[in-house]
Amino acid sequence: MSSVAITRLDASAAGFQKQLADLLSFSADTDAAIHQAVAEILDAVRKRGDAAVVEYTRRFDRVQANDMAGLELSQERLQQALKSLPLRLETALKAAAERVRSYHERQLQQSWTYTEADGTVLGQQVTALDRVGLYVPGGKAAYPSSVLMNAIPAKVAGVKELIMVVPTPDGVQNDLVLAAAAVAGVDRVFTIGGAQAVAALAYGTEIVPQVDKIVGPGNAYVAEAKRRVFGIVGIDMIAGPSEILVICDGKTDPDWIAMDLFSQAEHDELAQSILISPDVAFLDAVQASVDKLLPTLPRQEVIRTSISKRGGLIQCRDLDQACEIANYIAPEHLELSVADPDALLPKIRHAGAIFMGRNTCEALGDYCAGPNHVLPTSRTARFSSPLGVYDFQKRSSLIHVSAQGARTLGEIAAALAYGEGLQAHARSAEFRMEH
Amino acid sequence: MSSVAITRLDASAAGFQKQLADLLSFSADTDAAIHQAVAEILDAVRKRGDAAVVEYTRRFDRVQANDMAGLELSQERLQQALKSLPLRLETALKAAAERVRSYHERQLQQSWTYTEADGTVLGQQVTALDRVGLYVPGGKAAYPSSVLMNAIPAKVAGVKELIMVVPTPDGVQNDLVLAAAAVAGVDRVFTIGGAQAVAALAYGTEIVPQVDKIVGPGNAYVAEAKRRVFGIVGIDMIAGPSEILVICDGKTDPDWIAMDLFSQAEHDELAQSILISPDVAFLDAVQASVDKLLPTLPRQEVIRTSISKRGGLIQCRDLDQACEIANYIAPEHLELSVADPDALLPKIRHAGAIFMGRNTCEALGDYCAGPNHVLPTSRTARFSSPLGVYDFQKRSSLIHVSAQGARTLGEIAAALAYGEGLQAHARSAEFRMEH
Repeated sequence: MSSVAITRLDASAAGFQKQLADLLSFSADTDAAIHQAVAEILDAVRKRGDAAVVEYTRRFDRVQANDMAGLELSQERLQQALKSLPLRLETALKAAAERVRSYHERQLQQSWTYTEADGTVLGQQVTALDRVGLYVPGGKAAYPSSVLMNAIPAKVAGVKELIMVVPTPDGVQNDLVLAAAAVAGVDRVFTIGGAQAVAALAYGTEIVPQVDKIVGPGNAYVAEAKRRVFGIVGIDMIAGPSEILVICDGKTDPDWIAMDLFSQAEHDELAQSILISPDVAFLDAVQASVDKLLPTLPRQEVIRTSISKRGGLIQCRDLDQACEIANYIAPEHLELSVADPDALLPKIRHAGAIFMGRNTCEALGDYCAGPNHVLPTSRTARFSSPLGVYDFQKRSSLIHVSAQGARTLGEIAAALAYGEGLQAHARSAEFRMEH
Repeated sequence: MSSVAITRLDASAAGFQKQLADLLSFSADTDAAIHQAVAEILDAVRKRGDAAVVEYTRRFDRVQANDMAGLELSQERLQQALKSLPLRLETALKAAAERVRSYHERQLQQSWTYTEADGTVLGQQVTALDRVGLYVPGGKAAYPSSVLMNAIPAKVAGVKELIMVVPTPDGVQNDLVLAAAAVAGVDRVFTIGGAQAVAALAYGTEIVPQVDKIVGPGNAYVAEAKRRVFGIVGIDMIAGPSEILVICDGKTDPDWIAMDLFSQAEHDELAQSILISPDVAFLDAVQASVDKLLPTLPRQEVIRTSISKRGGLIQCRDLDQACEIANYIAPEHLELSVADPDALLPKIRHAGAIFMGRNTCEALGDYCAGPNHVLPTSRTARFSSPLGVYDFQKRSSLIHVSAQGARTLGEIAAALAYGEGLQAHARSAEFRMEH
C-alpha cells in the first residue's frame, strides 16, 4: 500500500501566501484549434440551421438521422426511461427532485412597488425568462443530478419552455439522464451536443427554437461556444475544476474527512481537495486514512492524481486563521467540520456552499439536501452565487410619475442634464413641468 | 428647415419582422487592432504593475506623474469639487443621490434559513462583495449621474471599498464627476483610464488594490479589457448603444414625444429611438414636431444622424400588437405614453425600465426618479436586469444536516451516487449513516 504524496503547507511559514496561490492556480487556456473549430461550427449553424447540426451530429457523435426531427426525443421516451429505472433509483431521484424544488421555491423573487407622497409610483417588475436551453454532457460525465439542479430552478422561476440538449455518442441514450429530465419537467429534448447544440439554441434553427439563456456544463468546445454566443443569449458561469475546502478542528473521524476529500477528487484529475486544521496530528491521521482507503475505491487512479497534484493539507494557527484562508480561497464547497459551525459562520465571507457540522458531507449537497450543486469555482465566489431561481428571473424598473412628481423631479433632472450638456433630456423633462 | 427622414414601418405589412430585425441590428465588432493592443496592455500591467500604468497614462492621457501615488486624488479634492459647484447643481446632485439611495435600499437581499422536522437547517447567506472598481469615462461622456448610479447600489449593498478610476486627458479634471464621487461615498479615486485602469483593478498593483468586480461604461478598449479579465473579477454587462421605445396611443403632445426620442438620440449616432402607435396621423404629427424642434437643439447633428439612420416610426394595429413588438425588441427604455399604462403593464414581459404615463419621460429616470439608469441594451432585457444592489451581493448556500437527516439524505445520495458511478460520494454519505 503506497502512500499518496499530498502537499503540506504551514500557514505560519514565510512564503505561505505564495505557496497557496501556486497550489490554487491552474491553466484554463483553450487552444487556438478549439477557437477556430468553434467559430466555424457557430457560423455554419447560423447560416444553414438544422442541416449543419445534423451533419455535425453524424460526424462527431456517429448518430444517423435524416433531419432534426429525427434527433428529438418524445415525452413518451422520457417517461419510458423513468419507468425503466430500478425502484430504489426512481425513489431517490424523485425524493431529490422534491427537496431541490422545495428549497428553490424560497428563492422566488416577487415584484414590488411603493407610492410616494405626491402619488409617484416606483417599483420593480420581476418576470421569468421565456425560454431556456439546458446543456447536458454525454458520455462519462452524464449526471442526472445535474439535470435536476439546472432544470428545477428554471421551472420554479416560471420558464415556459425548457429545452434540453444531450449528445448521444454512437446513439447510446442514458436512461438515468432522460428519467431526470422527465422528473424535472423538461419540455423538449434533442440528442445533439457540442458547439453545434449551443449554436442551435443561441440562434434557433427551423426546428430548435431560439432560447434566451443557456445553462449547464460541457467540455472545452461547449464552454468556448457559450462564451461566443454570450450577449445574443445569457449564459451561466463557465465552470472551472471542482473544489472542496474542509476546515476541521481535528475531532472528526479522519476516515470521514479522507472520504470527503476523495469525493471531490474523484470528479477529475484537476479537481482540488484541501484540508485545513490547527491540529498537526490530525493532518497526519487524515494522511493515514487517505493511504488506507484509497485502494478500496474504483476511481482510485483519478483520485490519486488529483490529490497528489492539486490536493493540500494545511496547518493553521487556529480556526480564525482557517476562516481567513477560506475567504482568500473562496472555495466552491466549504465544510466546517467542527463542534460549533455556527460560531465560525459569521467569519466566512466567500464560499459557494457551506456544509456545517460533522454530519454534513458535501455529497449530501451534491444530490439531495436541496440547495444547488452548480456553484462558483476558481475563487469566483468572491463575486458570484450558486445557480438559483434568480438566474431565470429578470427585473424591469417601474416608474410612474404623478403631475406633481413631474415638476419636482423635472427640476432636478433638468439641472443635471444641462450640467452634462444634454439639452434634449432637459427639455423633455421641462415640457412636463410646464403642463 | 429640412425634414428629417425617419424609417416608417407598418406592422401589418408583409416582411415587417425582417424590416424590424434589420432596423435593430448593428455591428458591434471590435477590430483586431484593439484586441491586440488590449492584450499587450493587460500583460504589461500584470507584469510591471504601477510602472506600466503610469507609462500608459503619460502616453495616452498626456498626464505627467512620477508614480501611481501622484495619480490618486484625496478625499479633500473630492469635497473641494463638491463645494465648487453652483448651489442649484449641488442641490440637484444631492437630491438625485438621496432618491437613488432610497429606491435601491428596497433591493437589499437578506440571509434566510429554515429548519426541517428532523432538525436539518437549510438556507442562504447573503454577503456583500469586499471591493469594487468603478470605471468612469473621461472627456465628453463623463457623466456625474453615471457615478451615482454605479456607486450608490454598491454602497447600499455594503461594499467596504469602492475604487473609482477616471481618466483625465491633459490633466483636466471634471468637478461635477468628482463631486458625484464625494456624494456617492466613493472611497478612493485614481486618475487613470483605458485598458490599463481595468488591468490595475483586475490584477492589483503595488498601490491599486485588486477588486472583486468592475462596473461602469467605457470605450471599445475598456469593453474589450473587461471581457478579458472576466473570471478573474466579475464585470457588469457590456453595454450596446442606448435605446428608447415609445408606445403611444396618439393622445400625448407630439412635441413631448419628439423630444423624448431626441433625448435618446442625442447620446450618440448609434443610439436608437423608435415610436409605435396605432394612430397614423399621430406618427405624422410627431414627424412634424421632429422637423420643427430639431433645429432648436445644440446637439442637432448627432440627433439627426441617429434618428435618420436608426430611428423608426411604426404603425401598429392596436396597443396589444404594440406590446408584442415591444417584447420582441426588449428595449432598454420603454415609455407607455398612454391613458392607462397599468392596463398594458401585464402584457410587457421584457424591458429594462418601464416609464408609465404621459408625465413619465425617460429623462426623469436617467437622473433622479430612483431606479438605476444602467440597463440591459440590444435585446438583452430578455434575460438580464438593471444594475442593482443584487449585483454587489452574492449568496452562499447553507446546509447543516442533523443526525437523523444524515440517515435520510444519505440513503438518497448514496443511491444516486452509485447510479452515477461516484463511489467516494456514496461512501462519504454512508459513513455518516453508520454513525
